[in-house]
Order: sequence, then structure tokens, then C-alpha cells
Amino acid sequence: MMENAVILIQCPDQRGIIAKISDFVFRYNGNIIQSDQYSTDPENGRFFMRIDFTFDPGQVPREHLEKEFDILARSLKAVWEIHYASTVMRMGVLVSKLDHCLVDLLYLYRSGELRVEIPMVVSNHDTVRALVEQAGIPFHHIPVAPDTKPQSEKRILELVADTTDFLVLARYMQIFTPQFFAGYTKDIINIHHSFLPSFKGSDPYRQAYEKGVKVIGATAHYVTVELDEGAIIEQLVERVSHRDNVEVLKRKGRNLEKLALANAIQAHIEHRIIRYQNKTIVFA
Amino acid sequence: MMENAVILIQCPDQRGIIAKISDFVFRYNGNIIQSDQYSTDPENGRFFMRIDFTFDPGQVPREHLEKEFDILARSLKAVWEIHYASTVMRMGVLVSKLDHCLVDLLYLYRSGELRVEIPMVVSNHDTVRALVEQAGIPFHHIPVAPDTKPQSEKRILELVADTTDFLVLARYMQIFTPQFFAGYTKDIINIHHSFLPSFKGSDPYRQAYEKGVKVIGATAHYVTVELDEGAIIEQLVERVSHRDNVEVLKRKGRNLEKLALANAIQAHIEHRIIRYQNKTIVFA
Amino acid sequence: MMENAVILIQCPDQRGIIAKISDFVFRYNGNIIQSDQYSTDPENGRFFMRIDFTFDPGQVPREHLEKEFDILARSLKAVWEIHYASTVMRMGVLVSKLDHCLVDLLYLYRSGELRVEIPMVVSNHDTVRALVEQAGIPFHHIPVAPDTKPQSEKRILELVADTTDFLVLARYMQIFTPQFFAGYTKDIINIHHSFLPSFKGSDPYRQAYEKGVKVIGATAHYVTVELDEGAIIEQLVERVSHRDNVEVLKRKGRNLEKLALANAIQAHIEHRIIRYQNKTIVFA
Amino acid sequence: MMENAVILIQCPDQRGIIAKISDFVFRYNGNIIQSDQYSTDPENGRFFMRIDFTFDPGQVPREHLEKEFDILARSLKAVWEIHYASTVMRMGVLVSKLDHCLVDLLYLYRSGELRVEIPMVVSNHDTVRALVEQAGIPFHHIPVAPDTKPQSEKRILELVADTTDFLVLARYMQIFTPQFFAGYTKDIINIHHSFLPSFKGSDPYRQAYEKGVKVIGATAHYVTVELDEGAIIEQLVERVSHRDNVEVLKRKGRNLEKLALANAIQAHIEHRIIRYQNKTIVFA
Repeated sequence: MMENAVILIQCPDQRGIIAKISDFVFRYNGNIIQSDQYSTDPENGRFFMRIDFTFDPGQVPREHLEKEFDILARSLKAVWEIHYASTVMRMGVLVSKLDHCLVDLLYLYRSGELRVEIPMVVSNHDTVRALVEQAGIPFHHIPVAPDTKPQSEKRILELVADTTDFLVLARYMQIFTPQFFAGYTKDIINIHHSFLPSFKGSDPYRQAYEKGVKVIGATAHYVTVELDEGAIIEQLVERVSHRDNVEVLKRKGRNLEKLALANAIQAHIEHRIIRYQNKTIVFA
Repeated sequence: MMENAVILIQCPDQRGIIAKISDFVFRYNGNIIQSDQYSTDPENGRFFMRIDFTFDPGQVPREHLEKEFDILARSLKAVWEIHYASTVMRMGVLVSKLDHCLVDLLYLYRSGELRVEIPMVVSNHDTVRALVEQAGIPFHHIPVAPDTKPQSEKRILELVADTTDFLVLARYMQIFTPQFFAGYTKDIINIHHSFLPSFKGSDPYRQAYEKGVKVIGATAHYVTVELDEGAIIEQLVERVSHRDNVEVLKRKGRNLEKLALANAIQAHIEHRIIRYQNKTIVFA
Repeated sequence: MMENAVILIQCPDQRGIIAKISDFVFRYNGNIIQSDQYSTDPENGRFFMRIDFTFDPGQVPREHLEKEFDILARSLKAVWEIHYASTVMRMGVLVSKLDHCLVDLLYLYRSGELRVEIPMVVSNHDTVRALVEQAGIPFHHIPVAPDTKPQSEKRILELVADTTDFLVLARYMQIFTPQFFAGYTKDIINIHHSFLPSFKGSDPYRQAYEKGVKVIGATAHYVTVELDEGAIIEQLVERVSHRDNVEVLKRKGRNLEKLALANAIQAHIEHRIIRYQNKTIVFA
Repeated sequence: MMENAVILIQCPDQRGIIAKISDFVFRYNGNIIQSDQYSTDPENGRFFMRIDFTFDPGQVPREHLEKEFDILARSLKAVWEIHYASTVMRMGVLVSKLDHCLVDLLYLYRSGELRVEIPMVVSNHDTVRALVEQAGIPFHHIPVAPDTKPQSEKRILELVADTTDFLVLARYMQIFTPQFFAGYTKDIINIHHSFLPSFKGSDPYRQAYEKGVKVIGATAHYVTVELDEGAIIEQLVERVSHRDNVEVLKRKGRNLEKLALANAIQAHIEHRIIRYQNKTIVFA
């Protein structure tokens, strides 16, 4: 029974990396499905590689493969991670009242297009409960008030810490405290409803309207302690005109938000993203 | 012999404006070619209209038409302007070393696609002289150094003040002083090589690269004393990836810049733009 | 209590039409919300207009307004129709197994973004029943086999003839016979999963893949007896590459299909579409 | 002194290809700049690879490298070619009256963005002579009449056969006979002014207008004996509306044509294209 794995690796660029890594796969009787590389500069740059391959764990057990690869990686001064396709990632979802991204994610989840488990959906409102429970997913209503934020975040942390591999903020309108990030050190993906770095902060469609831009956008990005400053994963844009008032911008933007978030999650769970210097390499 | 005219008008919204204006054209035996309206809010908003029509100046002289329309406009508390298609606008062009926008404008000018006169091209470098003179257009090399900027701007003003109807900054990399704007009160259109309001100021492609955006843009806008803050006319965007270094961003951006600037100029000379609250209404 | 109405009108172009129509609204104390015109040629062309206005039916009853407008329309040799915003259109939906368009329409319906009534959803499969009934909409499973097609179409006709104002084929994979079109003479909107006129007929994504196109598309159009030949309402496109196999094309295409169909329906129910010579004028 | 080379290779997919090829480069002290692979199917598919690397011809002469690589390629049952960056490709250009693509190519050539030699431009009209000669490129006016086509093609063949590496039809409106293709067996790139396979043949913008499409396109493709049927390299599209008459479609289309052709040529001269089954793999 063959197993499918993806290795993501980054290291200082140097002669022979691709040969060494592809030879590694070959020696362990692996079969490369896809291989992608990128170097910031072939001379003195940083090298990034994603290698998607099958191997026979009966012949080469996971632990052995990993141990051997680590020896190679050390020789390259590389940072690396391995993911097995048989492990379905567990995605926790946080949402507030606006449910268009949630509805889209639930549809993609139910249709099998988005290959994740969703252990729970958490919201600071109770309005999407029916939607979530109809999809057979546990729902948790955790209200957030300024004075109860620490307790609310603590409750969320208890729910998601061990049960999720990453979180998605599908239009979750609460800002986490540094304490939350200290407690949840895995990846968090957010959808911001503007073409970052334009229009950070609140009500970006109103900001866009006031500025009179002719194109609006949505940005899916990793979340860091600094709001709206994490590495950008995906951005989508659409033309608008003077006729489009704030409500129309919001309506047009919803499509961008849904699609940008779905694309970003898809890239994340397929392990196509490597981060470096607060930017993303997103392999095709 | 029929004459073609465009009236641009803005006023507080009120019942019956379109009827009054289209009836005006009808009473003076005009024929409406195209009529566009926009209201920020039909109740208490501001109303904008562009009406493109033909009339017979033998029957209704220009002065008479204008005097009569002014009476109507006053009754509507309107601001208005009229433009005659037989008057070809005179476009002064300023450029620095990067010549892709200039080359495109000269091509559109020579092919007749851009219906303007170009009384001169001014540059702070001498590198594009041959290009300009081959197109039969006078060229003026006016170097700008920090200590000579006032004199340089004065020379430019002398050249363009009476001979142009508007200026185009086709990648002119000098920032005008308030004195220049005081001396040239007609319209100035600039092309900024980013998706404003992102990446104002210098080297926006490097800023975009450092930020790791997935879409770049170019913005054509009217120039005001405050740099990169004038009303946006046109924005164009294109997807980029982690593979696109600053040089590639610049190359991709050149197409956006050329096209955004050409579109903006086309809208301007066809009198399809009305400005209000530092934004543009650009009729189709 | 003011009422909102939209008049769509087309006639031979002639001097004074806009003045006459906008004056008509003014005389009946109407207030124009938006007015759009288009002429194929101001000299000898065909003129199209959409006028969106409010009036007071207490002062001017609907019948009176319509009778008076008809007199004006006759004098212009015009074809026209009037729609009242208070009348919500009834949209019948037909669907087969692929449910992405249906799910999107149901979401837009439930969120209030798509202002229609949906009297029923009909499918030749039973798979989407739960989805539809959860949304509180009657569902009818009407299988279609080659030899039972006439009876199936008869049953559909009985269901939709009097209860719907238009039909939407949201990936309904059955081809109607001319008898069906004879029985249902109202509008039918279809989403075709290609950039028409390329790749008519079945499995267009496979056709696109075999051809090696670099852009795929989806087309929403009115349905006529001749398959895939009705007037195009909306087309959306997206870049693809050699890496995108038929499955990926289908996945990317689903987003285009959903959005193109939703845009087309939105334009249809807002009465922004006029048809002429198997083409559409879609006012913004 | 290091030399830069690109190898393009295709063969039946099999385990270990990437390892073998990257190891080959490593063994000859080469340094991989970029490596791209694509497989139609990792099990039984066809494998395509582009490898861009530097090597030291003082250490490993070209002939030796090629001979050794051929041994490897034979073992893989591969078809392959090698290109050296120091060899600038010679691009013959054919054009008729419409000069927008030509002007763009000449600009890209003069600015150094398009790294080719242009040994000559041939036209069946004399109108673009000045443009071409100003760029310092020999111009040949070879009129084509139905009865003189064989002689005209013969003259063109004599001019281009030995002096060019590929031809570009930059809106050359003559159809070559099979005899021409027999005489010129190198690559020919054409720009077709529609979104193929829609609107083959003549006057595609009129066809698009008559059909009422909402998006227009341009297609750059390799030319084969069968008109408009060669492998597609690049397609670009733009939204249009009912307001856009044939003239506007042509104007909007010119931008698409220029850009699609330039992109295609860029990919061709950077040896990023592999052809298979009348389709293109275009590596990024």
C-alpha cells in the first residue's frame, strides 16, 4: 500500500540541492508526483522546495524515512516538515454574524472539495447555529464583551488547542489579545475584506468608497499579533465604479472574500505554502 | 453643419432635472447622442449628468445656447461646463527617463486613436528627444536640480501655461512645488505605479515586493498639491507570484501603467469625468 | 405611499425621445431614480431605454399611468413593458445532480440578496431534496428517460406554467423539446459551462482541456429552442494552465458558473435587460 | 566563464527522472537556476521538464555535455533540445497594415526587454517602412496578389529561411500555402484577434459583436497548415458591453493582441514552451 507525502524545505541556496533531494526519494523507492522549487537568488539566495511523492511504508517506515531525511536536511542547513496525505487536517472555524464565507466553506466541506475535518465552529453570536448543526458540526456560542474577552479567549483556547491543526477566521470580527496567540501557536488564517495593505482596520469597504478606488479586493493572510500584518496568501480583486455604493461594494466583495479564503485554505491544507520573511511562497 | 457638444453638470438632486435638460436640448433642435446620469442618493443626494448632443450653430449660435443653458443651470443651482467636439484639447506631456508611457501615447496620437494636440513634451532628461522629435513634436529639456527647481518650474510654466489645456505626467519623477500648482490651475493627470492608496511615494514596486502582495496595480489620478492624493480616475491590476522579483513587477507594471494612463486621458478628453469630493464619476 | 416602477422601452431612434419620456415621468409627479439609454446609432439606429422611477399611485393609479404611457409609446412606435418593484418575481429552478449553482442561489435567496420567490425546485434526480426542503421550498423529483421525456416535460409544465415568472436552469442537464418551449413562453435562463460560442454541447470542460485553451469561461444566457444559441447575458472567465486537468477546470469553472448565473438573474429581476436581435442590452 | 543553458525534455513518465537529470547537472558541476516539471499523470503519463542551469564550458565543453546528456535521454526514451542563453534568437516579423503589434515589438526590442535579433520585417504593404527603418531594421515590401502568391512566398522564403530562427505574424493578413510551410519548417507564431476556438477566420471582432459576447479575447498560437488550429500559447481577455461597437472592440482588442503576442514570444525565446498533442506546456 503506497503512501503519499509532501516535504516542504527551505535552506541557503547551494549547488546540488535538487539532485540530493530527488535522489533521496529515488533511493527510497519513492515516486515524485510533483516537485517545485524557488530560489530568491541562485547565487546567494534562499532555496525553497516542495516535493510531493509516494513511497511504500511497508518497505520504508515513516520514522526511518524521516530520520534519514533529517540527516540530509542537516547537511543542507535546512528547515523542513513532512505531511502525509492520509492525515486529514482539522480546521477550527471562528465566525461572527456575516455567514457568506462560512456557508461557502461548509458547502466545500460537504461536497468533498475541501478535504478537512471541522471539529467545531465557534461564534460570538448564536445566529449561525442552525447552519452549522445541519452540517453535522458541533457549534459553540461564546459571546465576547470587552470585559469578558480574557475568559472568552480562554474558553476558545480550551476548545481548539488540542482538537485543531489550524484555525480559520471566516469573518470573525473580534481581535485576539497577545495572550490568545501565546496559547495557540499553530496557524491562523484570516480573510480581510480589503486589498491589503490598503484599508486596514474597520469598515474597509467604507474606506474604499470614501477614497473612490476603481478596484476593490479581499486578502487571505496568516494572522500575527499585529493586526492585518501577517503574510499574504491570496488576493482577489474586482472592478467597481462610482455607481457602486458601500452596500454594492460589500456585495461584490463577498464573492472575493469567499473565493480568496477558500483558495488560501486549499493551498494551506495541500501544504503548498512556505513562509519566509513575512511573505509566502505559494507553489502552484 | 451640425456641431457636437458635451455638457457636464452637477447640482443638488431634485425632481425633473433630466426632463428639464433633455427638453432644453430638444427645444433647441438638438439631438442627444448619449446621456448619462448618476445620483449619490435620489432623495437628498447630488446629481451628475453628462449629455452629449448635436445641434445646429447656424440656427442656435454657441453663445446663445450657452446663455440659455446658464439660465436653466442657475435655476438648478448647478455647476456646469460645455465642451465642443470641434475643439481638440491640447495636452502637454512631462516625462523623465522611463519612456514606455510616452511611447504608447505617441503611438496613440500618431494613429489617431488619441484625439489631442501635443504642443510639446518636456523632460528633465534629454534621452527621449529623438522619439519626440520623430513624431514631429517640439521637445524641451529642462533639467531639475534641488537648488534650481523654482527656475525650472518657472520655465515649464512659461511653456505650458497658455499652450496647453491639461498636463500629463507620463512617469515624470519630479514633485512639483505648491508654486507650480498656483501657476498652473488646469488639470494635471499623473500615473502612479501602484494600486493607490497602497504604496504611495517612491519605488512602489519594491514596496509591493517587500510586502509580498499577490496583485499589483497602477493608478491614474488627478494631481493635487498633496502627492498621490488626488481623485482616482482609473486603476488596473494584475496577479503576481512569489517568483516575480522587483524587475518582473516593474515589467508587468509597465503594461498596467500604459493602459491605465491611456484610459484616463481618453476619459478626460471625451469629457466623461466629473469630480466631486476628491472622487471621480467616470461615465462609460 | 410612493411606488417604484421600471419601464423598459425600445423603438426606432428619433430626436426628443429622452425629453418626452423624462417629461412624462415629471408630469405625473414621478421622480427618476435612474435612467439609462443606448442607441445602436444616433442617426438611423434603434433606441433602448430603462427608466427607474417612483410615483404616487394614490395620485396616479397604475392603470392610468400605463394607459397614458402607451399613448406616448405608440407615437414613438415603441415596444415597452412596465414592472413594479412591489411585485416580487417568481423564479422556478431546475437542477440535475451538480448542486453548486443551486446552493449559491439558495444562499442568496435566504440572505435576501436575491429578491425572488422560489415556488419550487424541480430535479430529474432526488439528490438535492434535503437542501431544498431545508430552505423551506417545495421540491419535485421528476425523472426523465428518453421514452418518458414528453410526460416529464408535461408534468414540469403543469408545475411551473402558472406559478413562475421565469425559469432558471441551474445546471439542468436535460434538453427541452420544442413542445416544452411552446408550452412555456416566459423567459428561461441557463448557465452553460463554457465561454460560448466555444464548446457548445456536452462536456465543455473536456473540450476546453483537449483544445488546450489558457482561459476558461461560463456563460449565462436566455434559452431558445436552439441549444446554447440564445442571447448571452453574462460571461465570466478565468486563466488556466497546462497543469489544470479536467477536474481542476471543473472546480475553477464552478465559481464562474455560480457567479455568472447569479449576476444574470440579478440583472433579469431588476429589469435591466432588453433583448434585440438575439443579443442583450444589460444596463448597469 | 560560466555559460547558461536550458534543456527541454519530454518522455514517458517513470520513477527517478528528476533525480537522474538533476544529478546529471550536478555531476558536470552545473548549478540549477530553475527547474520545472509537469506530468500528465504520474502513473502512465508523459513527463515534461525544463531545466535552466549554468555550467563551465572550459571544464565541460558543449559537445561533451550534449553527447553525455543524449546518452541519458536515450535511456529515458526522451525527446530533448538544448538552448544556450548566449545565442540570441533571430525573429523574422511579417506584418500587414495594422501596426500596433509591430510598434509594440519594436519598442520592446529597442528597450532591450525582448532579447532577440530582428533580421528583417516583411510586409505586403509599404506603410510601415519608416517605422521599421527608424529602428535600424531592414524592411522588405513584398506585395501579395492571388495570382502572385507562389512567387511572393518564394521571395519571403529566400529572405527568412537561413536568417531567422522563427517567424512572428504580427497581424499579417495573408494565409500561407502548404508550400510555404514545406519550405519553412521552423516555428511560426501568430496572433489571432479572437478568443480561439471562437471566431476563427476573418473579421472576428465583427463576429463577436454579432454574437453579443460579453468578453473578447486574443490568442497567440503556433501556426500550422490548418489555419487558426495550431497549439495555443497565450490568451488574454477583456470585458465588453452592449455599448462597444465593432470599432471599440477593435480598439480594446489591440491591447490584448499586443500583450498576448509579446507574452508568447517571451515564453518562446526563453525556451519555456514544450508542445505535445497540439497543446503547449508553458512553464512559468
